[in-house]
Amino acid sequence: MNRPIGIMDSGVGGLTVMKEITHALPSEEVYYFADSMRCPYGPKSQEDVKQYTKEAVQFLIDKGVKAVIIACNTATAAVMPALRDEIDIPVYGVINPGSLGALRKSDNNEMLLLATEGTIKSGAYERGILSFDSDVKIHNLPCPEFVDLIESLDFENSDITRKAVADKLAPYKNTAADTVILGCTHFPIIEPFIDEFFNGRKHIIDAGFEAVSVALVQLHKKQLLSAHDKTPAHRIFIHGDNNRFEKVLNSWIPDIDYKIENIYLQESY
Amino acid sequence: MNRPIGIMDSGVGGLTVMKEITHALPSEEVYYFADSMRCPYGPKSQEDVKQYTKEAVQFLIDKGVKAVIIACNTATAAVMPALRDEIDIPVYGVINPGSLGALRKSDNNEMLLLATEGTIKSGAYERGILSFDSDVKIHNLPCPEFVDLIESLDFENSDITRKAVADKLAPYKNTAADTVILGCTHFPIIEPFIDEFFNGRKHIIDAGFEAVSVALVQLHKKQLLSAHDKTPAHRIFIHGDNNRFEKVLNSWIPDIDYKIENIYLQESY
Repeated sequence: MNRPIGIMDSGVGGLTVMKEITHALPSEEVYYFADSMRCPYGPKSQEDVKQYTKEAVQFLIDKGVKAVIIACNTATAAVMPALRDEIDIPVYGVINPGSLGALRKSDNNEMLLLATEGTIKSGAYERGILSFDSDVKIHNLPCPEFVDLIESLDFENSDITRKAVADKLAPYKNTAADTVILGCTHFPIIEPFIDEFFNGRKHIIDAGFEAVSVALVQLHKKQLLSAHDKTPAHRIFIHGDNNRFEKVLNSWIPDIDYKIENIYLQESY
Repeated sequence: MNRPIGIMDSGVGGLTVMKEITHALPSEEVYYFADSMRCPYGPKSQEDVKQYTKEAVQFLIDKGVKAVIIACNTATAAVMPALRDEIDIPVYGVINPGSLGALRKSDNNEMLLLATEGTIKSGAYERGILSFDSDVKIHNLPCPEFVDLIESLDFENSDITRKAVADKLAPYKNTAADTVILGCTHFPIIEPFIDEFFNGRKHIIDAGFEAVSVALVQLHKKQLLSAHDKTPAHRIFIHGDNNRFEKVLNSWIPDIDYKIENIYLQESY
C-alpha cells in the first residue's frame, strides 16, 4: 500500500528508527512528527505524555499514514496498548520488542536499562522482561542528560560526549550486567561512546531497531508495505521550532530526500 | 543443577507441559503439583487463584525445586509478573510465550483464543499480543466445558469429544482467524479434535509448548539444567484426591517413571 509510515517522537530520537526503516525498505515513504515544542517527554507526567502522543498520532493519521511507530519509549509506556482502542490503523511501540531483544541477547540475565525517568517510572521494561522470566536482574539508570546532550547537538563534540557517558555510567563500569538496553530512541546516536565505555564487552540493545523489525514483519503480513520501487521524498513535521533538527537528520541519515514543515497543532486542529 | 523443575496446575492440564519437558530434556526431574481439591481455577476469582497459586509455588519451593513453570493460564494471568517480588527462583508463565507464538504464526493477524473465563477476563493475552501490534483481531471464546471434559476423562471417548468440540466451535467454523490459541494447558489433550474440526487449516498454538521453549532456553542460560544423564523418577503431588489423574498421566505421557503422593496443604503448612 503506497501510503506513508508515520513515526512520532518528542524530538530527534525517532530519527534512529527512521534510519532503520529507510535502510531496510528504501521504497517506504516516512512522515515524521517531532514534538519539539514539548520535548523532552521524559520528565513530564504520564497524563501529559499520553495526551501529546495521541495528538501526534492523530496528526499523522489525518495526513494519511497507514501505520504509526511510536519511536519514543516514554510515549510507548504512556499509551500502549490502550491506544489501540481509539485508533484503527496499526500502532507499534518500542518497549516490548526491546524487552524481548534484551532477554534473547543476555547470557546472564542481568541488564542495565538506560532510559528517561518517565520510561523507568512506568516499569514497562520490567513488566515486559519479567513476564517472560521472573528471575532477571534489571538495573535502572535514568539518563535525561543524554537526551539534552543529543537534542542540543553537543554530542557532535566527541570529547563532551565521551565525558558525559563516562560520568553517567561510572557507577556501572564493572557491572555484572552483560546487556545494555538503549531504552530511549535518542541513545543509539551516542551508542559508539557507550560501547567504547564498556570496551565493546556488552550486548547493546537498540529498542528502536527491535521495534522496526517487528513492525516491518507485521506490515508485510498485513500487505501494507509499498508496492512501488521508487525512492520517496519523506516529510518531516516539526511541532514548534527546532533549528537543530535538520543538522541531526543530515548527519544521522545523510542519504535521503526530505522536506521539513513547521506546524502548530493548536492552529491545525 | 540436579534439582527438580516444578510444575503447578489446577489439575491434569499441566501434564501437557510436563510431556514437553520430559521429551525435550529426559534427564530433568519434575515435581508436579496438581491442585485437584480446588480445580477448576477458571471460574474462580482472581484473588482466590492468586492465593492458591502462591501456595502451590511455595509448596514446590519447600520441596527443593530450582524453578517453577506455572502451567496454567488462569494462574499465570493472576500472578505474573507480580509473583517475582516474593519468590527468588525463576518462575515462568504460559501467557506471554503463547501470545508471541501466536503473533509469529498468524499470517492475517486474526486469532481465536480458547481459554477459561478467568484467563479471558484477565485480558492478559490481548495485552501480550496488542503490545506488539495494536492491530490484531482476537476472538475470545471461553471453553470451561473443555476443562470439565478433560478432567472427567470423557475426552477418551472420541465421539463425545468430537461432538463437544463441534458444538462449542460451531460459531467459528468459518472464522477468518487463521490461528487458534490453546490458552489453557488442558486443551492440547484434545488438540487433534480441534485440528480436525478446522480441517487442519488453522495454525494451532500450544501456549504450554511455547512456555517450555522459553523456560528451557532461560534455564540453560542460567546454568540450571541438570548435569547428570540418568532418567529420573518424577514426583506428582496431588492436593486432595484425583483418582483420574493417573489415567490421564499414563495415556498422555506413557513412558515415564513417577510416584504419586496425595498431600493436604492445610496439614503440611
